[in-house]
Amino acid sequence: MRITALAGGVGGARFIRGLLAHLESRPDLAGSRVTVIGNTGDDITLFGLRVCPDLDTLLYTLGGAVSDTQGWGRADETHRVQGELAAYGVEPQWFALGDLDLGAHIARSQWLGQGLSLSEVTGRLAARWGLPERGVTLLPMTDTPVETHVVVDEGDGPRAVHFQEWWVRMQAKVPASRFVAVGMDRAAAAPGVLDAIRQADVVLLPPSNPVVSIGVILGVPGVRDALRGTPAPVVGVSPLISGAPVRGHADACLQAIGLDSTTAAVAGLYEDFLDGWLVAPGDEGSVSRRGLAVESRPLLMTDVAAAADIAGAALDLAERLRPA
Amino acid sequence: MRITALAGGVGGARFIRGLLAHLESRPDLAGSRVTVIGNTGDDITLFGLRVCPDLDTLLYTLGGAVSDTQGWGRADETHRVQGELAAYGVEPQWFALGDLDLGAHIARSQWLGQGLSLSEVTGRLAARWGLPERGVTLLPMTDTPVETHVVVDEGDGPRAVHFQEWWVRMQAKVPASRFVAVGMDRAAAAPGVLDAIRQADVVLLPPSNPVVSIGVILGVPGVRDALRGTPAPVVGVSPLISGAPVRGHADACLQAIGLDSTTAAVAGLYEDFLDGWLVAPGDEGSVSRRGLAVESRPLLMTDVAAAADIAGAALDLAERLRPA
Repeated sequence: MRITALAGGVGGARFIRGLLAHLESRPDLAGSRVTVIGNTGDDITLFGLRVCPDLDTLLYTLGGAVSDTQGWGRADETHRVQGELAAYGVEPQWFALGDLDLGAHIARSQWLGQGLSLSEVTGRLAARWGLPERGVTLLPMTDTPVETHVVVDEGDGPRAVHFQEWWVRMQAKVPASRFVAVGMDRAAAAPGVLDAIRQADVVLLPPSNPVVSIGVILGVPGVRDALRGTPAPVVGVSPLISGAPVRGHADACLQAIGLDSTTAAVAGLYEDFLDGWLVAPGDEGSVSRRGLAVESRPLLMTDVAAAADIAGAALDLAERLRPA
Repeated sequence: MRITALAGGVGGARFIRGLLAHLESRPDLAGSRVTVIGNTGDDITLFGLRVCPDLDTLLYTLGGAVSDTQGWGRADETHRVQGELAAYGVEPQWFALGDLDLGAHIARSQWLGQGLSLSEVTGRLAARWGLPERGVTLLPMTDTPVETHVVVDEGDGPRAVHFQEWWVRMQAKVPASRFVAVGMDRAAAAPGVLDAIRQADVVLLPPSNPVVSIGVILGVPGVRDALRGTPAPVVGVSPLISGAPVRGHADACLQAIGLDSTTAAVAGLYEDFLDGWLVAPGDEGSVSRRGLAVESRPLLMTDVAAAADIAGAALDLAERLRPA
């Protein structure tokens, strides 16, 4: 089976890890190929190094190297380099860069500097983490640098800051009024992205942030059209449970674009292409649209087995929705 | 007293550290200012990061952070980032970059990228290591990128490699036929360099490599003329003991430019400006030139106290040579 998923960081990575575990338990699905289209709107250049937080979270999680307590970054991480940067007075210091993590940023920056595309660089990084052997292709949504900026007002008038500054430094506590994907007007989908959606047997939307992760990927020219046009069923997993994000700040993001923090509001963002929608028990009632199959089940990804069960349920729902 | 020294890496740094210890033991020289003009010909860009090995060795040694067993790099160093780069297959791997050391390279690269000159960057790094408080100003010889390349022949015809590749990867074992300071034709002495020589009370040449350290600094436009013209006595310390370098590959460098590995040959490289020459016992006989004061004494910098004694002897010799 050809499965294509759009993914942000932690939630997306844990879902895909569960999906792979599920596939490995299904002899009937042996040989399945999973293409993950990762959000690159969170990317940032720090200390001259190109950092791709969502792609790295996907790589580390699928490569078995993620810090499970954090959900992102490397296990057994240290911060000796960053301690030095602080001692030298280099700014900014609000974004934690571990030593092991820096290896990826330096490798990526070196290769980008040599003229490789982000797709090519991501392929090289993925090789180290064994993704090809597991049947996984990780694609950045675009090879064009796109950065999500956030319009905030700390009391002295509106100004735009990089998404990471809002998310990490401000902890999303400063109200946002708008998100702008800077560079998107010049962006094209990375090679393979649109075909992966058009030629999939199933398209999955993991429980990633609907605004700043999935929403940004949907803004890449051609992606939304490909989702509308694909013959594959498109099944999403709600990132909200009883109206609250399990982690992250999806509620603040929805509020910024004028939406309630509800499963229905999220489904509304996908209404032109969503076929199936997995929600948490108790959240079914709020969603109803002709042609949308809604199913409820526990959605907390407490461990890999729980995530595998959720992914399996999404595949089952897709199977039932697939045109005969 | 205003003391100016030209310095390469390990030998220069250990000598200057001894000089500072000596000055601190001399109440009559309280308030002395030491300007160190560092070789930047060894500089190299690795993984997109600008590495200045000699400047860093000077900073770490004078800042009390050097690895004394190596003579360069940081004490208590780890190599977690480089281990990652190796795992990702990033080349080259023959140049060891420690985690703490990387902090300096990332800081430097970030600041250079922001438009600061290497002098300004070096000043910022030096502040962290307390050089200003000790009366020390560290200047790169030039703010222009200059890189020493080495013409070698491994059996398939002559080709030029970066100095570090010859020094570190080839361990200077592949015979060199020529050194080329790439970029020197466009280089100018960094701000303060020529004045530091012209306005010094004493100019010292530590026991640094006469070809690829001191020799490269001498190639910076104006430096040699400033040395010839300064009213200050110029006193050098031989880097050879009984014809052999204490460490490093000065003998291979001298051979490459067609010179014997002798104290006399080194003095000959400085003959147009050298006033005093400290040599090891037994090496006096080989040096004689009208107007050159030669003195012998043990020159092994076994510890800071030994280096301080040598620096003190160099200052004493300069004092006797100073015009009344």
